[in-house]
Amino acid sequence: MQQHLVQKDAAFSQAEYFDPTRPRTQLSQAEVELMDRYWRAANYLSVGQIYLLENPLLREPLQPLHIKPRLLGHWGTTPGLNFIYTHLNRVIKSRDLDVIYICGPGHGGPGMVANTWMEGIYSEVYPEIAENEEGMRKLFRQFSFPGGVPSHVAPETPGSIHEGGELGYALVHAYGAAFDNPDLIVACVVGDGEAETGPLAASWQSNKFLNPARDGAVLPILHLNGYKIANPTVLSRIPHDDLRKLFEGHGYAPIFVEGNEPEAMHRLMADAMDLATDMIRAIQEEARSGTLSTQAPRWPMIILRSPKGWTGPKEVDGKKVEDFWRAHQVPVATCRENDSHRKVLEDWMRSYNPEDLFNADGSLKAELKALAPTGNRRMGANPHTNGGILRKELKCPPISDYAVDVTVPGEKIVQTTEVLGKYLRDVMKLNDTEKNFRVFGPDETDSNRLGPVFEATDRVWMEKIEPYDVHLAPDGRVMEVLSEHLCQGWLEGYLLTGRHGFFSCYEAFIHIIDSMFNQHAKWLKVTRHLEWRKPISSLNYLLTSHVWRQDHNGFSHQDPGFLDHVANKKADVVRIYLPPDANTLLWVADHCLNTWDRINVIVAGKQPEPQWLSIEDATRHCEAGIGVWDWASNEDDAIAPDVVMACAGDVPTMETLAAVMILREAIPELKIRVVNVVDLMTLQAKEEHSHGLTDEEFDKLFTTERPVIFAYHGYPYLIHRLTYKRNNHRNMHVRGFVEEGTTTTPFDMTVLNQLDRYHLALEAIERVPELKEKVPHVIEMLKGKLALHTAHVQEYGEDMPEIRDWKWTGLTA
Amino acid sequence: MQQHLVQKDAAFSQAEYFDPTRPRTQLSQAEVELMDRYWRAANYLSVGQIYLLENPLLREPLQPLHIKPRLLGHWGTTPGLNFIYTHLNRVIKSRDLDVIYICGPGHGGPGMVANTWMEGIYSEVYPEIAENEEGMRKLFRQFSFPGGVPSHVAPETPGSIHEGGELGYALVHAYGAAFDNPDLIVACVVGDGEAETGPLAASWQSNKFLNPARDGAVLPILHLNGYKIANPTVLSRIPHDDLRKLFEGHGYAPIFVEGNEPEAMHRLMADAMDLATDMIRAIQEEARSGTLSTQAPRWPMIILRSPKGWTGPKEVDGKKVEDFWRAHQVPVATCRENDSHRKVLEDWMRSYNPEDLFNADGSLKAELKALAPTGNRRMGANPHTNGGILRKELKCPPISDYAVDVTVPGEKIVQTTEVLGKYLRDVMKLNDTEKNFRVFGPDETDSNRLGPVFEATDRVWMEKIEPYDVHLAPDGRVMEVLSEHLCQGWLEGYLLTGRHGFFSCYEAFIHIIDSMFNQHAKWLKVTRHLEWRKPISSLNYLLTSHVWRQDHNGFSHQDPGFLDHVANKKADVVRIYLPPDANTLLWVADHCLNTWDRINVIVAGKQPEPQWLSIEDATRHCEAGIGVWDWASNEDDAIAPDVVMACAGDVPTMETLAAVMILREAIPELKIRVVNVVDLMTLQAKEEHSHGLTDEEFDKLFTTERPVIFAYHGYPYLIHRLTYKRNNHRNMHVRGFVEEGTTTTPFDMTVLNQLDRYHLALEAIERVPELKEKVPHVIEMLKGKLALHTAHVQEYGEDMPEIRDWKWTGLTA
Repeated sequence: MQQHLVQKDAAFSQAEYFDPTRPRTQLSQAEVELMDRYWRAANYLSVGQIYLLENPLLREPLQPLHIKPRLLGHWGTTPGLNFIYTHLNRVIKSRDLDVIYICGPGHGGPGMVANTWMEGIYSEVYPEIAENEEGMRKLFRQFSFPGGVPSHVAPETPGSIHEGGELGYALVHAYGAAFDNPDLIVACVVGDGEAETGPLAASWQSNKFLNPARDGAVLPILHLNGYKIANPTVLSRIPHDDLRKLFEGHGYAPIFVEGNEPEAMHRLMADAMDLATDMIRAIQEEARSGTLSTQAPRWPMIILRSPKGWTGPKEVDGKKVEDFWRAHQVPVATCRENDSHRKVLEDWMRSYNPEDLFNADGSLKAELKALAPTGNRRMGANPHTNGGILRKELKCPPISDYAVDVTVPGEKIVQTTEVLGKYLRDVMKLNDTEKNFRVFGPDETDSNRLGPVFEATDRVWMEKIEPYDVHLAPDGRVMEVLSEHLCQGWLEGYLLTGRHGFFSCYEAFIHIIDSMFNQHAKWLKVTRHLEWRKPISSLNYLLTSHVWRQDHNGFSHQDPGFLDHVANKKADVVRIYLPPDANTLLWVADHCLNTWDRINVIVAGKQPEPQWLSIEDATRHCEAGIGVWDWASNEDDAIAPDVVMACAGDVPTMETLAAVMILREAIPELKIRVVNVVDLMTLQAKEEHSHGLTDEEFDKLFTTERPVIFAYHGYPYLIHRLTYKRNNHRNMHVRGFVEEGTTTTPFDMTVLNQLDRYHLALEAIERVPELKEKVPHVIEMLKGKLALHTAHVQEYGEDMPEIRDWKWTGLTA
Repeated sequence: MQQHLVQKDAAFSQAEYFDPTRPRTQLSQAEVELMDRYWRAANYLSVGQIYLLENPLLREPLQPLHIKPRLLGHWGTTPGLNFIYTHLNRVIKSRDLDVIYICGPGHGGPGMVANTWMEGIYSEVYPEIAENEEGMRKLFRQFSFPGGVPSHVAPETPGSIHEGGELGYALVHAYGAAFDNPDLIVACVVGDGEAETGPLAASWQSNKFLNPARDGAVLPILHLNGYKIANPTVLSRIPHDDLRKLFEGHGYAPIFVEGNEPEAMHRLMADAMDLATDMIRAIQEEARSGTLSTQAPRWPMIILRSPKGWTGPKEVDGKKVEDFWRAHQVPVATCRENDSHRKVLEDWMRSYNPEDLFNADGSLKAELKALAPTGNRRMGANPHTNGGILRKELKCPPISDYAVDVTVPGEKIVQTTEVLGKYLRDVMKLNDTEKNFRVFGPDETDSNRLGPVFEATDRVWMEKIEPYDVHLAPDGRVMEVLSEHLCQGWLEGYLLTGRHGFFSCYEAFIHIIDSMFNQHAKWLKVTRHLEWRKPISSLNYLLTSHVWRQDHNGFSHQDPGFLDHVANKKADVVRIYLPPDANTLLWVADHCLNTWDRINVIVAGKQPEPQWLSIEDATRHCEAGIGVWDWASNEDDAIAPDVVMACAGDVPTMETLAAVMILREAIPELKIRVVNVVDLMTLQAKEEHSHGLTDEEFDKLFTTERPVIFAYHGYPYLIHRLTYKRNNHRNMHVRGFVEEGTTTTPFDMTVLNQLDRYHLALEAIERVPELKEKVPHVIEMLKGKLALHTAHVQEYGEDMPEIRDWKWTGLTA
């Protein structure tokens, strides 16, 4: 190992943390030339993918019909990505390292495809794209071509755990992948465009949560190629000293590699890679031998400044292209139609000397092939990038161990999420040796009542820990940071590399990661069609501190719309659960943790609430996903009920039962059926979602002609959307959140949105033909209650005792 | 003005940019004591709001019934916020500055309310909350109390342009407010919790887009109080030197104010405020006199490190509270029930010496009142925080000047957004003197074909500009950065302070700001009920590069779900427009730019597409929002058509017309009505949205019994959701995006989602009773076309010429 010095105290300079006396990496001229040829081969293959349909080895002069009719792809970032790939290969081989490559500028898809083809893994995964001329032809043709592969890094790309479409998530994925993978180095290229995004800007601080004793390393490589689509990038134009300070300030030791002359750059980059991996090894060895303080060590990073579109055309039509944003996509555009453009392309491709790179049969020359690692050391074949291969089943305790003892429905008042917290605590314990389970949340694990988890583990924290700090430790397994983006991204990276996790969040603020959710759902949808990608654990959300219990924080904290967002996604990927009490929550959470390739959303409140079902009943109910609650209904089995009172969600369930109790007491002759929905997707048509009820099943529950008063947790439209094809849809009257909310009491929140017991009871009366005329006194009583409630709340600032102390009193039919 | 030195070259040290010889601010002991009393008064009023129902001046010992039944609020951040407010007041008064206060840790609502009450503005806005004991009692009582005000900074808070619920947007709002307000200083407190979020982390770089010659200044005040809800904060525990470098790296000159001893802290803070405002003035004077280089100047910022819950209880029940996260919300919780807790509260409140702060009538003592600025210099009364007051109408040119000359529908093929670009160019020119219009986009203005705007202005850029750069200038009015968060946040800040703007974005990636949209919509909804808040300009989105034209980028770029997200919001706030061509887009954009207090979403593609309506027809059509296209229909006026072909969105409209052409040629006896929808909200019931059609109007368009084949731009469920109550809903068959997408051709995208002309024609045949049996040859022809299409695309990688060259040929009925 080379000399190194990792400076841990506050005041240091570049000279101090890189020992100036360390021996530099000295590549021989032959090594430089070989690596340069390897890089040129990757560049050649990248350009070929963007442009060529035929004539992949340029055996004949380029003809119009050799060129793709639509030229779609991104050249600008690609040569830099290829340069980095080449140098990572060298350091992997020379040190037998376990490295994966996360490609932040994922629009540089041609580079990742080229390199994995050169490694051989591409042909192993897709045998029709063989390592020969015909394979190369198909490789070129399929790129950004109908029926082929996307122009971005995608699930189809071997070695990727990162969709390259939406920028900003590379570094947070990298950290997620590195957690609990002590021998892994995650090389993460961050583009200077991507670096302007919020999620990426926040991700640099992830180093405060990475423990060198038990986690792997992240090697960020900030690639400053200077330009975005049509602008310079911020980081490429700030003063050099500011750039250095910015990353030192983030706790990194930046190693600069800057230039445009290939030979000099190869030498600099090789030295930087050696230095960086030396530093990583040194930090890890000190940490693992107990000689490193718990303070976050200063991890290395590389800042690579190289021209955008490096080695491509310098100018086209007299306009600057190389080292400018015009190199971003297709530098020379009309190669089919315009002979001089085609000449530019041909000169460009021939400048790489393809005959010097590929054998006559189109395969890569042996001396170049020898530069790539072999087997699972190839970054395209690293099993961490196909996490399903490494995934082990999560060990879960029997949920009955945590069950709330419910003998009489509604009798017990329990904090539902706290029960879940005990279960999660033991999941944590059971998987302690495997180290493959973590809990994530934006500073809210305790606030969301999952506190029992802290009996099993702590929050991870690599900065200074004070004696009075609570449940902070470098080896904690609870990930808390005030960023939903980081929680989501870490978890995605953790799952994609074959582990398990659980993310709890305030319901309203989960919208912050709407777009990340989208991309993960898209990833899962695509991987389902890729046989070679093995299933990964599902992404599990618990949305709590939900809309009906944000009376104190007010309107800004009230939004149940994430469920609508989720329901737009493909049925085979998403699930939505609304367990009404602790035992149903236990069943649902346990179920979700044992699924794969899905996104499960669970909504459950954290406040004390009545418990309805025993664990046995909860299990039966959840397995069906929906069902009649006979014990709350008073219908006559022989005939359809007068009204169906349906509910989904904990607060709507309680309000429905309270409404039912009022109605049954006031109008005993009214026959009511209570239907509770745990699995929202049961409402959808069978042909649209595998959990959907058949029409017969649906009609059996909801009748074909009786009014249905449906109290729903979120925006009522979602229920209509899911059920509009059902026979009885015209009779479904849905109450939910209609954007009425403010600072008030919990019950008043339901009143403002007309989801409360009184409005539900009034609506039931309204909808049952002829009942309205018969019970004016009940209507008056209900309206009186509403008025009384409002007056009481305004006077006392809390709900009436009869609301606060309300209990289901076990009426029987 | 004091001595200063703003260092602009790369290598500098703290000593260099703060001239060590500058004279320090020397507060007299009397000044310190006065300011400390002012601060104590704000703290007293803050605690009172969190705890007290009665007995506001503590005239008698605290009794249980003086305490609120539910204690809800955040103390921890509040004393720091009050400290900053006190010192901003001093510097405003002593220098006659125009300053607004953006409160990032908006959960510290009590502090903002307290200070604005002390200034007198609170009582001016809410006369019932007078400056006397009864007013103070009501001030306390209303806080986080039903019918009262939220616990967070909110629209109800005078002086605020920033909802304090969701963290992360303070600094970006601050920059938005400062643009084009040369005399304004936006003091922006950033909490160290908030600083962990992605949007905030990205916002620091906003200084690269602020021009000291024409814009105001942002003074960030990073408030390190050390803790979040239950954790330390990252920035409070990193080494001091890293902290300094981090912000120097971001281009700021951090001024540190650290400690916990009030007197010393007052002296330090006063000096820091003077230094910061000196530096701001110096930068501005140099910039405005032309002696500052165009390189981004090094703006000052203050880093205030003070204890969380400063001056509150040190310990409660033996547990550390002050300077720890336990001070976050209500430090001592059971003051009604628990005598010793109540004693802690009483001692705490009395420690501020209320009799030393307030007169016998409850008003603030005159010598303290004298510390606050007066009139519009009060931060709570600054007109910039009630932007509607300052807002001037945007000058817009007549849209007819830009109209595409359409005489025959479908004849011309035009890039629709480019036409809009010309209109926006002239809006830019017309308002050049007012300097109150900007265009925002994540590096996509040109890519989205709004390039003509660059004939009127450039992209703003304060870093180095190279000779070969294109349309970059320090005085540009196009805001481009690769962050949807920054675009959205800047625009919000700009609008909230009374200006106008336009945001264009890739459709799929607008989901990145879903949650920011939510918060802005909530803000607008609340301000509509606040008479004193004057209307601000609407937030206008153009979503382009939309789902149907992301065939080249692939699945990751395909998502039309933002419209569903928007449609969940209150009807009076949101509008959704889907103009099918350039003239309709012109009308819609012009209309949106002239509205207020709304969020308008426009979806329009940027690719060349057929033009349907003359500007006169477009105007009529858009004014109605929906209508029959007679020229495309062949129905008999006397009887209902056989089928209604409805469409919303540019691509669906084109496919619908192509389907109509096929059907009319193949089955001339089939009577077809074509309905086009521009304003999506017309579909909703009149009682739910002011734009909604009455049932009579709806039935007139869609019939009550004929099949409707509805081709829609987004997820089809939204159309069902909007129309499920309509009489003919059972016959509405909606085609839209059903998550089928990949890398393919534009037309194949529609085929994959069955929104193409052939599927639409097939569906029409399917749905018209008995037609199916009569036209087997047409069905066969359509299926044949589909097969041919697929084969062609796979072979050639582009659509068939008959698709690419398709034109509506002007059939007449």
